[in-house]
Amino acid sequence: MTTVTEAITATARASKDASRHLAGLTRAQKDSALAAMAQALRQGTDEILAANARDVAREREGGMSEAMIDRLTLTADRIEDIAQALGDLAALPDPVGQVINGQRLPNGLRVRQVRVPLGVVGMIYEARPNVTVDAAGIALKSGNAVILRGGSAAEESNITIVGVLQDALEAQGIPRASVQSIDAHGREGAQALMRARGLVDVLIPRGGAGLIETVVTTSVVPVIETGVGNVHVFIDDTADIDQAVEIAVNAKVQRPSVCNAAETMLVHESIAPQFLPKVFQALVDDGVILHTDDAASAFAADGSFAPAKEEDWHTEYLALELAVKIVPSIDEAIDHIRTYSSGHTEAIVTGSTTSAHRFTTELDSATIMVNASTRFTDGGELGLGAEIGISTQKLHARGPMGLEALTTTSWIVEGDGHVRQ
Amino acid sequence: MTTVTEAITATARASKDASRHLAGLTRAQKDSALAAMAQALRQGTDEILAANARDVAREREGGMSEAMIDRLTLTADRIEDIAQALGDLAALPDPVGQVINGQRLPNGLRVRQVRVPLGVVGMIYEARPNVTVDAAGIALKSGNAVILRGGSAAEESNITIVGVLQDALEAQGIPRASVQSIDAHGREGAQALMRARGLVDVLIPRGGAGLIETVVTTSVVPVIETGVGNVHVFIDDTADIDQAVEIAVNAKVQRPSVCNAAETMLVHESIAPQFLPKVFQALVDDGVILHTDDAASAFAADGSFAPAKEEDWHTEYLALELAVKIVPSIDEAIDHIRTYSSGHTEAIVTGSTTSAHRFTTELDSATIMVNASTRFTDGGELGLGAEIGISTQKLHARGPMGLEALTTTSWIVEGDGHVRQ
Repeated sequence: MTTVTEAITATARASKDASRHLAGLTRAQKDSALAAMAQALRQGTDEILAANARDVAREREGGMSEAMIDRLTLTADRIEDIAQALGDLAALPDPVGQVINGQRLPNGLRVRQVRVPLGVVGMIYEARPNVTVDAAGIALKSGNAVILRGGSAAEESNITIVGVLQDALEAQGIPRASVQSIDAHGREGAQALMRARGLVDVLIPRGGAGLIETVVTTSVVPVIETGVGNVHVFIDDTADIDQAVEIAVNAKVQRPSVCNAAETMLVHESIAPQFLPKVFQALVDDGVILHTDDAASAFAADGSFAPAKEEDWHTEYLALELAVKIVPSIDEAIDHIRTYSSGHTEAIVTGSTTSAHRFTTELDSATIMVNASTRFTDGGELGLGAEIGISTQKLHARGPMGLEALTTTSWIVEGDGHVRQ
Repeated sequence: MTTVTEAITATARASKDASRHLAGLTRAQKDSALAAMAQALRQGTDEILAANARDVAREREGGMSEAMIDRLTLTADRIEDIAQALGDLAALPDPVGQVINGQRLPNGLRVRQVRVPLGVVGMIYEARPNVTVDAAGIALKSGNAVILRGGSAAEESNITIVGVLQDALEAQGIPRASVQSIDAHGREGAQALMRARGLVDVLIPRGGAGLIETVVTTSVVPVIETGVGNVHVFIDDTADIDQAVEIAVNAKVQRPSVCNAAETMLVHESIAPQFLPKVFQALVDDGVILHTDDAASAFAADGSFAPAKEEDWHTEYLALELAVKIVPSIDEAIDHIRTYSSGHTEAIVTGSTTSAHRFTTELDSATIMVNASTRFTDGGELGLGAEIGISTQKLHARGPMGLEALTTTSWIVEGDGHVRQ
């Protein structure tokens, strides 16, 4: 244990040193480094694919599900996509140096708050090698050093990718330690990273609820919680029924495995008789299993539903399953959501400005959709250009996080010999 | 223990319920509640002073130092000042509802990020009854419920003050649970508060380094670290000597017991022979004990200094003591500060734009002063109007925290039946 802790401490110290260099880079330097990283990935395709093939073969032999194998697998096309995403980052404005507030005070002091990088960012994530490149690119663009700990199933892929990126950075005069992998240190490495308070400025876990809960409760390094989504769609009594069906179906089935997919649908009792038969038909046609309360069950075809249990209101299915409840009013919808939601995303379909206003102000969730699918909670969709994750906490960053989420601010105060009276 | 935990959980639940009501208050409602709170304090002066007198008598008997007794003691004048500060809060803009970003996306979705209250704020602080009122006012203005845990020495004062404020809120139709004290539950109450994850949105410790370290390492509720200040002043070779003397003296002696007072002075070796004799004379005249490195000792009068030890570079004296070191270059000054600083505030006195730029960009501290005293790191001085503390962390809020630091944002997305392709 001590040896791993020492190794991670040395890694984090090297990151801290690199972060000082990175904070001083100009946008032009960072953008040309991003281009070099993209080019290096293209040139390193064979080497990366070979490492990835070893990961895939080992995990397939170990019995990994095909869905997980798919997330783990790289191809030449996927590497090209990943490289292009790095290029897209170069087109985004540099958050570092932005002045977000400033004034001259009555005593003549000039004050401004300027965005600066956080410093050293730790990422703990699942076996998805594309996240390795994504995180490296976003960290570099925002002037941060990054320490990466991907899922062990992607260990060879990640270590190879990080090596390729480090070579590219070094050729640009940027320290190799700007992007480091601790995958070789396994679980103990992740544990040590969570204890590296003072060297690592923030830890961002990305993955399932279990991973995130472990990091949040274990880490003494500050954490940004991401991604657990017990997401609700409420169909108000004034909803346009066709719109409501489209939105509910899209929210549930367009990509059921992700955090912004709907998990519970609440339906106002006065619209239920018109709405539920239609939406149930559409959902069942798409293969959705319904978990309905007693009142909603009356509208479901025999064999298409199971009676909802208390547990269903808590469940993030991440699959083609949906809990459904009829509520007598928007008040009960809001109460239900405040009780069970993970605070990620909720949607209302309504024709009423009053309902829209109440829903957007009385809930306590990061993102509220009015007459739009919950699937839009995404940095790319909401115009951030890049996304490091979706925060479900309230401090620092909330909802989709772009480059700014990896910055803090510093106050700069200029005087002419000012002293306090 | 269980009973205290249950009591604190019930308290926090009541705060959570109250927070929903508070989030919906208009600015006019909050401002009139602040006025009512101020009025209630004035009318309750006798009752508050009687409770405070019991605290003071007990603590004096227990041997509390006179400096601490002074911080604990209320007078009719001090209560009037505290009441006026509540009135000043009413004059500040309401952060809740501010739209900090917004656009229409290419697909027609309307997106905006709106400031909303954090929800429930916990404060753990020392035996200063004025902080009780301050925190209650700032929390109310920013739409948050607050749970207060003051130092046990101020227990009777705090409980009485909170009762007075609750009566005033209730008369305004605002839940009593908007402001609650858990002082009656002692240390166990504070411990339980730090475990109330999911009910308390943020904990803000205010006080000495020990208190803050305990809260940061114990709490599973998110914390905003405040206030530890190992503050540096660097006198560059191009400094105006008179300005430098004034700033160094002001930073050290104007109020040595507070976090923005200077603790170490670094001096460029080429200005040391002109500068040090002058500043040492001024500091010694003001009663400052010098801890000088070998080179600086040569400029100090016999008996006015002690040789600096490694420990001195780490020490936040909070007293009329100052560590002094001569450095050969700004590079060494920056390295020294990056090594020893707590990241609170640093100042440079310089005539060089290059030095000013390097100092403001290569350090990693919340506030950087150029040709101004470190004593300006203060919410009131920097134009925030009110201050809940000074953050020395990087996430969420950095430096002096005003009303905005007690808010988060929510994304509101409006469509016309938008679904994701």
